[in-house]
Amino acid sequence: MSGTISGGRLLRVHEGLFKKNDQQAARNRETFRAARVRAVNLLSAPGAGKTAILERTIRELRPSRAGVIVGDLATDNDARRIRSTGAPAEQITTGTICHLDASMVAAAVARMGLDGLDVLFLENVGNLVCPASYDLGENLRVVVLSVTEGEDKPLKYPVVYRNAGVALINKMDLAEAVEFDRQTAHANIRRVAPEARILEISAKTGSGFQAWLDCLANIST
Amino acid sequence: MSGTISGGRLLRVHEGLFKKNDQQAARNRETFRAARVRAVNLLSAPGAGKTAILERTIRELRPSRAGVIVGDLATDNDARRIRSTGAPAEQITTGTICHLDASMVAAAVARMGLDGLDVLFLENVGNLVCPASYDLGENLRVVVLSVTEGEDKPLKYPVVYRNAGVALINKMDLAEAVEFDRQTAHANIRRVAPEARILEISAKTGSGFQAWLDCLANIST
Repeated sequence: MSGTISGGRLLRVHEGLFKKNDQQAARNRETFRAARVRAVNLLSAPGAGKTAILERTIRELRPSRAGVIVGDLATDNDARRIRSTGAPAEQITTGTICHLDASMVAAAVARMGLDGLDVLFLENVGNLVCPASYDLGENLRVVVLSVTEGEDKPLKYPVVYRNAGVALINKMDLAEAVEFDRQTAHANIRRVAPEARILEISAKTGSGFQAWLDCLANIST
Repeated sequence: MSGTISGGRLLRVHEGLFKKNDQQAARNRETFRAARVRAVNLLSAPGAGKTAILERTIRELRPSRAGVIVGDLATDNDARRIRSTGAPAEQITTGTICHLDASMVAAAVARMGLDGLDVLFLENVGNLVCPASYDLGENLRVVVLSVTEGEDKPLKYPVVYRNAGVALINKMDLAEAVEFDRQTAHANIRRVAPEARILEISAKTGSGFQAWLDCLANIST
Protein backbone atom coordinates (compact mmCIF):
# COMPACT_ATOMS: atom_id res chain seq x y z
CA MET A 1 0.00 0.00 0.00
CA SER A 2 2.68 2.54 0.80
CA GLY A 3 4.55 1.28 -2.25
CA THR A 4 7.80 1.40 -0.25
CA ILE A 5 9.85 -1.16 1.66
CA SER A 6 7.07 -3.64 2.60
CA GLY A 7 5.21 -3.30 -0.71
CA GLY A 8 6.49 -6.54 -2.23
CA ARG A 9 5.76 -8.57 0.89
CA LEU A 10 2.26 -7.12 1.14
CA LEU A 11 1.60 -7.90 -2.51
CA ARG A 12 2.60 -11.54 -1.97
CA VAL A 13 0.33 -11.87 1.07
CA HIS A 14 -2.55 -10.29 -0.87
CA GLU A 15 -1.98 -12.59 -3.85
CA GLY A 16 -2.26 -15.54 -1.49
CA LEU A 17 -5.50 -14.16 -0.07
CA PHE A 18 -6.99 -13.53 -3.51
CA LYS A 19 -6.18 -17.11 -4.53
CA LYS A 20 -7.84 -18.51 -1.42
CA ASN A 21 -10.79 -16.20 -2.02
CA ASP A 22 -11.18 -17.46 -5.61
CA GLN A 23 -11.17 -21.06 -4.35
CA GLN A 24 -13.90 -20.30 -1.80
CA ALA A 25 -15.86 -18.34 -4.43
CA ALA A 26 -15.85 -21.43 -6.66
CA ARG A 27 -17.24 -23.48 -3.75
CA ASN A 28 -19.93 -20.83 -3.14
CA ARG A 29 -20.89 -20.93 -6.82
CA GLU A 30 -21.30 -24.70 -6.56
CA THR A 31 -23.45 -24.28 -3.41
CA PHE A 32 -25.69 -21.77 -5.20
CA ARG A 33 -25.96 -24.03 -8.27
CA ALA A 34 -26.90 -27.06 -6.18
CA ALA A 35 -29.58 -25.02 -4.37
CA ARG A 36 -30.85 -23.55 -7.67
CA VAL A 37 -30.30 -20.04 -6.31
CA ARG A 38 -29.09 -17.20 -8.51
CA ALA A 39 -26.63 -15.02 -6.59
CA VAL A 40 -26.29 -11.29 -7.27
CA ASN A 41 -23.38 -9.19 -5.93
CA LEU A 42 -24.53 -5.59 -5.52
CA LEU A 43 -21.83 -2.90 -5.32
CA SER A 44 -21.93 0.87 -5.00
CA ALA A 45 -20.65 3.91 -3.16
CA PRO A 46 -22.19 4.56 0.29
CA GLY A 47 -25.71 5.92 -0.02
CA ALA A 48 -26.36 5.05 -3.68
CA GLY A 49 -29.52 3.23 -2.59
CA LYS A 50 -28.63 -0.49 -2.55
CA THR A 51 -30.93 -1.30 0.37
CA ALA A 52 -33.83 0.77 -1.01
CA ILE A 53 -33.44 -1.01 -4.36
CA LEU A 54 -33.54 -4.38 -2.59
CA GLU A 55 -36.61 -3.48 -0.50
CA ARG A 56 -38.61 -2.70 -3.64
CA THR A 57 -37.08 -5.56 -5.66
CA ILE A 58 -38.00 -8.16 -3.03
CA ARG A 59 -41.62 -6.95 -2.98
CA GLU A 60 -41.97 -6.79 -6.76
CA LEU A 61 -40.18 -10.10 -7.42
CA ARG A 62 -42.93 -12.10 -5.77
CA PRO A 63 -43.84 -14.93 -6.09
CA SER A 64 -40.08 -15.48 -6.56
CA ARG A 65 -38.38 -15.58 -3.16
CA ALA A 66 -35.27 -13.55 -2.37
CA GLY A 67 -32.84 -13.60 0.55
CA VAL A 68 -30.17 -11.05 1.36
CA ILE A 69 -26.71 -11.11 2.91
CA VAL A 70 -25.67 -7.57 3.87
CA GLY A 71 -22.19 -6.25 4.60
CA ASP A 72 -21.49 -3.15 6.68
CA LEU A 73 -18.63 -2.00 8.89
CA ALA A 74 -21.06 -1.39 11.75
CA THR A 75 -24.81 -1.57 12.57
CA ASP A 76 -27.41 -4.07 11.40
CA ASN A 77 -29.72 -1.32 10.09
CA ASP A 78 -29.83 -2.72 6.56
CA ALA A 79 -30.64 -6.31 7.58
CA ARG A 80 -33.48 -4.97 9.73
CA ARG A 81 -34.81 -2.91 6.80
CA ILE A 82 -34.69 -6.00 4.56
CA ARG A 83 -36.41 -8.22 7.14
CA SER A 84 -39.31 -5.78 7.32
CA THR A 85 -40.15 -6.91 3.75
CA GLY A 86 -40.55 -10.45 5.08
CA ALA A 87 -37.39 -11.72 3.35
CA PRO A 88 -34.64 -13.51 5.29
CA ALA A 89 -31.55 -11.33 5.80
CA GLU A 90 -28.19 -11.99 7.41
CA GLN A 91 -25.92 -9.10 8.43
CA ILE A 92 -22.14 -9.37 8.19
CA THR A 93 -20.46 -6.73 10.34
CA THR A 94 -16.97 -6.30 8.92
CA GLY A 95 -15.46 -3.90 11.50
CA THR A 96 -12.65 -2.13 9.65
CA ILE A 97 -12.67 -4.44 6.60
CA CYS A 98 -13.64 -2.63 3.42
CA HIS A 99 -15.32 -5.45 1.46
CA LEU A 100 -17.10 -8.80 1.68
CA ASP A 101 -15.08 -11.88 0.81
CA ALA A 102 -16.16 -15.36 -0.24
CA SER A 103 -15.53 -16.96 3.17
CA MET A 104 -17.69 -14.35 4.97
CA VAL A 105 -20.46 -15.12 2.49
CA ALA A 106 -20.07 -18.88 2.96
CA ALA A 107 -20.42 -18.47 6.74
CA ALA A 108 -23.51 -16.27 6.36
CA VAL A 109 -25.07 -18.76 3.92
CA ALA A 110 -24.49 -21.54 6.45
CA ARG A 111 -26.30 -19.50 9.14
CA MET A 112 -29.20 -18.42 6.93
CA GLY A 113 -29.73 -21.43 4.65
CA LEU A 114 -30.96 -21.23 1.09
CA ASP A 115 -34.18 -23.27 1.40
CA GLY A 116 -36.95 -22.01 -0.82
CA LEU A 117 -34.91 -19.09 -2.21
CA ASP A 118 -34.76 -18.25 -5.92
CA VAL A 119 -32.41 -15.27 -5.67
CA LEU A 120 -29.73 -14.39 -3.12
CA PHE A 121 -28.58 -10.76 -3.04
CA LEU A 122 -25.13 -10.05 -1.63
CA GLU A 123 -25.28 -6.38 -0.64
CA ASN A 124 -21.62 -5.43 -0.44
CA VAL A 125 -19.97 -2.79 1.81
CA GLY A 126 -20.56 0.67 0.32
CA ASN A 127 -17.21 1.17 -1.39
CA LEU A 128 -16.25 1.57 -5.05
CA VAL A 129 -12.70 0.27 -4.61
CA CYS A 130 -12.01 -2.82 -2.48
CA PRO A 131 -15.10 -5.00 -3.18
CA ALA A 132 -14.19 -5.03 -6.89
CA SER A 133 -11.32 -7.45 -6.26
CA TYR A 134 -13.31 -10.13 -4.40
CA ASP A 135 -15.34 -12.74 -6.30
CA LEU A 136 -18.09 -13.93 -3.94
CA GLY A 137 -19.24 -16.75 -6.23
CA GLU A 138 -22.05 -14.65 -7.67
CA ASN A 139 -23.76 -15.28 -11.00
CA LEU A 140 -24.24 -11.59 -11.70
CA ARG A 141 -22.38 -8.49 -10.57
CA VAL A 142 -24.41 -5.28 -10.43
CA VAL A 143 -22.97 -1.83 -9.82
CA VAL A 144 -25.24 1.03 -8.77
CA LEU A 145 -24.55 4.65 -9.76
CA SER A 146 -26.69 7.32 -8.12
CA VAL A 147 -27.45 10.37 -10.27
CA THR A 148 -26.32 12.51 -7.31
CA GLU A 149 -22.74 11.16 -7.51
CA GLY A 150 -21.84 12.72 -10.84
CA GLU A 151 -21.42 11.26 -14.31
CA ASP A 152 -17.63 10.85 -14.01
CA LYS A 153 -17.64 8.08 -11.39
CA PRO A 154 -17.31 5.16 -13.86
CA LEU A 155 -14.07 6.71 -15.18
CA LYS A 156 -12.75 7.37 -11.67
CA TYR A 157 -13.56 3.89 -10.32
CA PRO A 158 -13.12 1.75 -13.46
CA VAL A 159 -12.34 -1.62 -11.82
CA VAL A 160 -15.69 -2.00 -10.08
CA TYR A 161 -17.51 -1.17 -13.32
CA ARG A 162 -15.33 -3.35 -15.55
CA ASN A 163 -16.67 -6.64 -14.16
CA ALA A 164 -20.31 -5.61 -13.89
CA GLY A 165 -23.03 -7.36 -15.93
CA VAL A 166 -25.57 -4.66 -15.09
CA ALA A 167 -25.15 -0.98 -14.23
CA LEU A 168 -28.18 0.45 -12.44
CA ILE A 169 -28.51 4.24 -12.53
CA ASN A 170 -30.60 4.94 -9.43
CA LYS A 171 -32.44 8.00 -8.03
CA MET A 172 -33.67 8.99 -11.50
CA ASP A 173 -36.40 10.95 -9.66
CA LEU A 174 -33.62 13.41 -8.71
CA ALA A 175 -32.09 13.60 -12.20
CA GLU A 176 -33.54 16.99 -13.02
CA ALA A 177 -32.72 18.53 -9.63
CA VAL A 178 -29.04 17.58 -9.97
CA GLU A 179 -28.90 18.34 -13.72
CA PHE A 180 -27.91 14.75 -14.43
CA ASP A 181 -26.36 14.37 -17.89
CA ARG A 182 -27.69 10.97 -19.12
CA GLN A 183 -25.68 10.87 -22.33
CA THR A 184 -22.36 11.50 -20.59
CA ALA A 185 -23.15 8.97 -17.85
CA HIS A 186 -24.06 6.25 -20.37
CA ALA A 187 -20.98 7.03 -22.49
CA ASN A 188 -18.72 6.83 -19.42
CA ILE A 189 -20.20 3.47 -18.35
CA ARG A 190 -19.81 2.15 -21.92
CA ARG A 191 -16.13 3.16 -21.93
CA VAL A 192 -15.25 1.06 -18.88
CA ALA A 193 -17.92 -1.66 -19.16
CA PRO A 194 -18.89 -2.08 -22.83
CA GLU A 195 -20.80 -5.31 -22.10
CA ALA A 196 -22.82 -4.11 -19.11
CA ARG A 197 -26.56 -3.62 -19.49
CA ILE A 198 -27.48 -0.09 -18.35
CA LEU A 199 -30.84 0.41 -16.64
CA GLU A 200 -32.24 3.67 -15.26
CA ILE A 201 -34.38 3.20 -12.17
CA SER A 202 -35.81 4.93 -9.14
CA ALA A 203 -36.16 2.82 -6.01
CA LYS A 204 -38.37 5.60 -4.64
CA THR A 205 -40.94 5.78 -7.47
CA GLY A 206 -40.41 2.33 -9.02
CA SER A 207 -39.64 3.71 -12.47
CA GLY A 208 -37.64 1.31 -14.64
CA PHE A 209 -38.16 -1.64 -12.31
CA GLN A 210 -39.80 -3.96 -14.83
CA ALA A 211 -36.63 -4.13 -16.95
CA TRP A 212 -34.58 -4.80 -13.81
CA LEU A 213 -36.91 -7.61 -12.70
CA ASP A 214 -36.74 -9.12 -16.19
CA CYS A 215 -32.99 -8.98 -15.97
CA LEU A 216 -33.04 -10.89 -12.65
CA ALA A 217 -35.37 -13.52 -14.14
CA ASN A 218 -32.88 -14.19 -16.92
CA ILE A 219 -29.59 -14.56 -15.05
CA SER A 220 -27.59 -17.37 -16.59
CA THR A 221 -26.02 -19.71 -14.07
CA MET B 1 -8.84 -9.65 5.36
CA SER B 2 -10.34 -13.12 4.95
CA GLY B 3 -9.76 -13.67 8.65
CA THR B 4 -8.49 -17.19 7.88
CA ILE B 5 -5.03 -18.76 7.55
CA SER B 6 -3.07 -15.69 6.36
CA GLY B 7 -4.90 -13.25 8.63
CA GLY B 8 -2.16 -12.99 11.26
CA ARG B 9 0.60 -12.51 8.73
CA LEU B 10 -1.41 -9.85 6.89
CA LEU B 11 -2.09 -8.04 10.16
CA ARG B 12 1.64 -7.94 10.97
CA VAL B 13 2.50 -6.58 7.52
CA HIS B 14 -0.23 -3.93 7.86
CA GLU B 15 0.96 -2.96 11.34
CA GLY B 16 4.43 -2.40 9.89
CA LEU B 17 2.98 -0.25 7.11
CA PHE B 18 0.89 1.82 9.53
CA LYS B 19 3.97 2.46 11.68
CA LYS B 20 5.99 3.61 8.64
CA ASN B 21 3.05 5.74 7.56
CA ASP B 22 2.87 7.43 10.97
CA GLN B 23 6.58 8.22 10.82
CA GLN B 24 6.22 9.78 7.35
CA ALA B 25 3.09 11.66 8.53
CA ALA B 26 5.15 13.20 11.35
CA ARG B 27 7.75 14.35 8.80
CA ASN B 28 4.97 15.81 6.60
CA ARG B 29 3.56 17.69 9.59
CA GLU B 30 7.02 19.16 10.22
CA THR B 31 7.29 20.18 6.53
CA PHE B 32 3.89 21.92 6.70
CA ARG B 33 4.84 23.67 9.97
CA ALA B 34 8.15 24.92 8.56
CA ALA B 35 6.34 26.26 5.45
CA ARG B 36 3.57 27.84 7.59
CA VAL B 37 0.96 25.89 5.65
CA ARG B 38 -2.17 24.47 7.30
CA ALA B 39 -2.97 21.03 5.85
CA VAL B 40 -6.54 19.74 5.60
CA ASN B 41 -7.38 16.08 4.86
CA LEU B 42 -10.78 15.91 3.13
CA LEU B 43 -12.59 12.56 3.20
CA SER B 44 -15.95 11.41 1.88
CA ALA B 45 -17.82 8.81 -0.14
CA PRO B 46 -17.53 9.10 -3.93
CA GLY B 47 -19.61 11.98 -5.25
CA ALA B 48 -20.24 13.81 -1.97
CA GLY B 49 -18.85 16.96 -3.55
CA LYS B 50 -15.25 17.30 -2.32
CA THR B 51 -13.97 18.88 -5.53
CA ALA B 52 -16.95 21.25 -5.84
CA ILE B 53 -16.41 22.32 -2.22
CA LEU B 54 -12.74 23.01 -2.96
CA GLU B 55 -13.47 24.96 -6.14
CA ARG B 56 -15.71 27.39 -4.23
CA THR B 57 -13.48 27.41 -1.14
CA ILE B 58 -10.37 28.37 -3.13
CA ARG B 59 -12.22 31.28 -4.76
CA GLU B 60 -13.77 32.54 -1.52
CA LEU B 61 -10.60 32.11 0.57
CA ARG B 62 -8.76 34.82 -1.36
CA PRO B 63 -6.46 36.61 -0.66
CA SER B 64 -5.34 33.49 1.25
CA ARG B 65 -3.74 31.05 -1.18
CA ALA B 66 -4.64 27.37 -1.34
CA GLY B 67 -3.09 24.40 -3.11
CA VAL B 68 -4.56 20.94 -3.58
CA ILE B 69 -3.25 17.39 -3.75
CA VAL B 70 -5.93 15.09 -5.18
CA GLY B 71 -6.14 11.31 -4.97
CA ASP B 72 -8.11 9.16 -7.40
CA LEU B 73 -7.78 5.61 -8.71
CA ALA B 74 -7.86 6.89 -12.28
CA THR B 75 -8.19 10.15 -14.29
CA ASP B 76 -6.85 13.61 -13.48
CA ASN B 77 -10.30 15.22 -13.84
CA ASP B 78 -10.27 16.68 -10.35
CA ALA B 79 -6.82 18.27 -10.59
CA ARG B 80 -7.87 19.88 -13.87
CA ARG B 81 -11.05 21.23 -12.25
CA ILE B 82 -9.00 22.67 -9.38
CA ARG B 83 -6.42 24.25 -11.72
CA SER B 84 -9.22 26.09 -13.53
CA THR B 85 -9.60 28.14 -10.31
CA GLY B 86 -5.97 29.26 -10.71
CA ALA B 87 -4.77 27.24 -7.71
CA PRO B 88 -1.88 24.77 -8.01
CA ALA B 89 -3.05 21.13 -7.99
CA GLU B 90 -1.19 17.86 -8.09
CA GLN B 91 -2.99 14.61 -8.97
CA ILE B 92 -2.03 11.30 -7.37
CA THR B 93 -3.36 8.37 -9.41
CA THR B 94 -3.51 5.42 -7.03
CA GLY B 95 -4.46 2.62 -9.46
CA THR B 96 -6.17 0.00 -7.28
CA ILE B 97 -5.11 1.53 -3.94
CA CYS B 98 -8.08 2.69 -1.89
CA HIS B 99 -6.53 5.62 0.02
CA LEU B 100 -3.77 8.21 0.10
CA ASP B 101 -0.84 7.57 2.40
CA ALA B 102 1.76 9.90 3.89
CA SER B 103 4.54 8.93 1.45
CA MET B 104 2.34 9.61 -1.60
CA VAL B 105 1.57 13.03 -0.14
CA ALA B 106 5.28 13.72 0.56
CA ALA B 107 6.14 12.92 -3.07
CA ALA B 108 3.36 15.16 -4.38
CA VAL B 109 4.44 18.00 -2.07
CA ALA B 110 7.99 17.66 -3.42
CA ARG B 111 6.67 17.98 -7.00
CA MET B 112 4.31 20.89 -6.31
CA GLY B 113 6.18 22.89 -3.67
CA LEU B 114 4.48 24.89 -0.93
CA ASP B 115 5.78 28.38 -1.81
CA GLY B 116 3.27 31.10 -1.10
CA LEU B 117 0.55 28.71 0.09
CA ASP B 118 -1.48 29.29 3.25
CA VAL B 119 -3.63 26.16 3.08
CA LEU B 120 -2.99 22.76 1.48
CA PHE B 121 -6.02 20.56 0.86
CA LEU B 122 -5.46 16.81 0.61
CA GLU B 123 -8.51 15.55 -1.30
CA ASN B 124 -8.53 11.86 -0.48
CA VAL B 125 -9.81 8.96 -2.59
CA GLY B 126 -13.62 8.80 -2.39
CA ASN B 127 -13.97 6.04 0.19
CA LEU B 128 -15.41 6.01 3.71
CA VAL B 129 -13.33 3.06 4.90
CA CYS B 130 -9.62 2.81 4.03
CA PRO B 131 -8.51 6.49 4.17
CA ALA B 132 -9.59 6.64 7.82
CA SER B 133 -6.54 4.60 8.90
CA TYR B 134 -3.86 6.78 7.24
CA ASP B 135 -2.57 9.92 8.91
CA LEU B 136 -1.25 12.19 6.16
CA GLY B 137 0.29 14.72 8.56
CA GLU B 138 -2.73 17.00 8.31
CA ASN B 139 -3.67 19.65 10.88
CA LEU B 140 -7.39 19.13 10.38
CA ARG B 141 -9.43 16.16 9.19
CA VAL B 142 -12.74 17.00 7.52
CA VAL B 143 -15.38 14.44 6.56
CA VAL B 144 -18.10 15.37 4.08
CA LEU B 145 -21.62 13.87 4.24
CA SER B 146 -23.93 14.57 1.32
CA VAL B 147 -27.62 14.89 2.20
CA THR B 148 -28.32 12.42 -0.64
CA GLU B 149 -26.39 9.62 1.14
CA GLY B 150 -28.80 9.18 4.03
CA GLU B 151 -28.60 10.15 7.68
CA ASP B 152 -27.32 6.74 8.83
CA LYS B 153 -23.87 6.91 7.21
CA PRO B 154 -21.99 8.17 10.32
CA LEU B 155 -23.20 5.09 12.22
CA LYS B 156 -22.30 2.75 9.36
CA TYR B 157 -18.82 4.21 8.78
CA PRO B 158 -17.87 5.31 12.31
CA VAL B 159 -14.06 5.20 12.00
CA VAL B 160 -13.79 7.91 9.37
CA TYR B 161 -16.06 10.17 11.43
CA ARG B 162 -14.38 9.44 14.77
CA ASN B 163 -11.18 11.33 13.92
CA ALA B 164 -12.79 14.27 12.14
CA GLY B 165 -12.49 17.83 13.49
CA VAL B 166 -15.18 19.09 11.14
CA ALA B 167 -18.16 17.33 9.55
CA LEU B 168 -19.48 19.18 6.50
CA ILE B 169 -23.04 18.35 5.47
CA ASN B 170 -23.04 19.21 1.76
CA LYS B 171 -25.71 19.58 -0.95
CA MET B 172 -28.09 21.31 1.48
CA ASP B 173 -29.81 22.72 -1.64
CA LEU B 174 -31.15 19.17 -2.17
CA ALA B 175 -32.22 18.63 1.45
CA GLU B 176 -35.92 19.11 0.79
CA ALA B 177 -35.96 17.00 -2.39
CA VAL B 178 -34.44 14.03 -0.54
CA GLU B 179 -36.43 14.63 2.68
CA PHE B 180 -33.18 15.03 4.61
CA ASP B 181 -33.70 14.65 8.37
CA ARG B 182 -31.33 17.22 9.90
CA GLN B 183 -31.92 16.27 13.51
CA THR B 184 -31.19 12.59 12.93
CA ALA B 185 -28.09 13.37 10.86
CA HIS B 186 -26.69 15.71 13.54
CA ALA B 187 -27.49 13.20 16.30
CA ASN B 188 -25.76 10.40 14.37
CA ILE B 189 -22.63 12.51 13.79
CA ARG B 190 -22.61 13.49 17.48
CA ARG B 191 -22.76 9.82 18.51
CA VAL B 192 -19.57 8.89 16.63
CA ALA B 193 -17.76 12.25 16.67
CA PRO B 194 -18.85 14.22 19.75
CA GLU B 195 -16.03 16.78 19.29
CA ALA B 196 -16.53 17.47 15.58
CA ARG B 197 -17.89 20.83 14.49
CA ILE B 198 -20.90 20.28 12.21
CA LEU B 199 -21.46 22.74 9.36
CA GLU B 200 -24.25 22.65 6.77
CA ILE B 201 -23.18 23.93 3.36
CA SER B 202 -24.00 23.90 -0.31
CA ALA B 203 -21.06 24.05 -2.69
CA LYS B 204 -23.59 24.84 -5.41
CA THR B 205 -25.28 27.87 -3.82
CA GLY B 206 -22.55 28.88 -1.34
CA SER B 207 -24.86 28.66 1.66
CA GLY B 208 -23.00 28.13 4.94
CA PHE B 209 -19.60 28.92 3.44
CA GLN B 210 -18.72 31.81 5.74
CA ALA B 211 -18.64 29.53 8.80
CA TRP B 212 -16.50 27.03 6.87
CA LEU B 213 -14.03 29.75 5.81
CA ASP B 214 -13.84 30.99 9.41
CA CYS B 215 -13.09 27.44 10.46
CA LEU B 216 -10.20 27.21 7.98
CA ALA B 217 -8.80 30.54 9.19
CA ASN B 218 -8.62 29.19 12.73
CA ILE B 219 -6.96 25.82 12.30
CA SER B 220 -4.51 25.26 15.10
CA THR B 221 -1.15 23.91 13.98
